[in-house]
Amino acid sequence: MSDRLAAQIAFLSEADQLKSVMRASRLHDNSRYENSAEHSWHVMLYAFVLAEQAGPDVRIDRVLKMLLLHDIVEIDAGDNPIHGTVDAAAQEAKEQIAADRLFGLLPQDQAKAFRDIWDEFEAAETPDAVFAKSIDRVQPPISNMANGGGSWLEYGVTIDQLSQRVGTPVQRGAPRLWQWLFPKLEAFFSKMPSK
Amino acid sequence: MSDRLAAQIAFLSEADQLKSVMRASRLHDNSRYENSAEHSWHVMLYAFVLAEQAGPDVRIDRVLKMLLLHDIVEIDAGDNPIHGTVDAAAQEAKEQIAADRLFGLLPQDQAKAFRDIWDEFEAAETPDAVFAKSIDRVQPPISNMANGGGSWLEYGVTIDQLSQRVGTPVQRGAPRLWQWLFPKLEAFFSKMPSK
Ligand SMILES: [Ca+2]
Repeated sequence: MSDRLAAQIAFLSEADQLKSVMRASRLHDNSRYENSAEHSWHVMLYAFVLAEQAGPDVRIDRVLKMLLLHDIVEIDAGDNPIHGTVDAAAQEAKEQIAADRLFGLLPQDQAKAFRDIWDEFEAAETPDAVFAKSIDRVQPPISNMANGGGSWLEYGVTIDQLSQRVGTPVQRGAPRLWQWLFPKLEAFFSKMPSK
Repeated sequence: MSDRLAAQIAFLSEADQLKSVMRASRLHDNSRYENSAEHSWHVMLYAFVLAEQAGPDVRIDRVLKMLLLHDIVEIDAGDNPIHGTVDAAAQEAKEQIAADRLFGLLPQDQAKAFRDIWDEFEAAETPDAVFAKSIDRVQPPISNMANGGGSWLEYGVTIDQLSQRVGTPVQRGAPRLWQWLFPKLEAFFSKMPSK
């Protein structure tokens, strides 16, 4: 048991670094960029509050676990801003290596279980993963509207790009949520200042 | 539905402020204080990884939800450092008012459900709450050992105070974990520099 606990605490200690991975999105009060650990907490809260937006096959307890783990690879691979210009294949390769190393710190049974959850999230095929992805995508636009434009201004994003990059996954996992949100986004973009 | 979603998003937006509530504990790399949102994510990860430390009656899915919500009252009431000298009764009164206001932003059914989860955590009586509390208490000592002493140095904490304030709840919810951790804490305190 002692070795097992040592491995678990080593993983949990390494995970502390997610608090220092900075994202492209900013806090609602615009005081600073958001980090990936607090983002992970916030999207879990979104998923729990908005669980009724999910289809009947979605098990919210599994969605929370997916979102708990979904960004841990960023400790090694960094955040990949959705409106940025990162090479997707290169980033995916980096994330695979990161997942090997980071989940590999855990005892073997947990390493496999955690990796399976993360792989399922990344594949975005099961109902749980589709909903988790939609929730992960819907939080930054709400922050951006609160703080005056945030990453949209920084990356020069148009409403059409937003519809494609965010609307597509959100509609897939939480269609009523997108239907409610889209008119608000349109209104915001129609009067958004340029940088 | 539209009003319901508006209330839910208002709550989720207000919750963003938990990212700006600073705790007494510091990151493992000692670069800055930890905030209560990223702490909440980290203790959920602790609970998930260390679930096998819980007693047979503990339902880890409920523990995760408790830890997701457990610090939201701090948006209004502030963090209450375990080694600090806050008036416990006054702090509890502030937290009750905070819970009324913050959970009250949600639709009524969710306001009640979330408040019930938080009340259960605070009461620390059910097996789920006892385990959640033990996990919430065990994370800061591990950070403090990583960063050279952290809040122990700042508050002049002794190993006896630590045993009482942290050991008691951790032993209650996760006794084997405390058995494993305590000798490490003793060794650390025996050579900890003073401030
Ligand atoms: Ca991400």
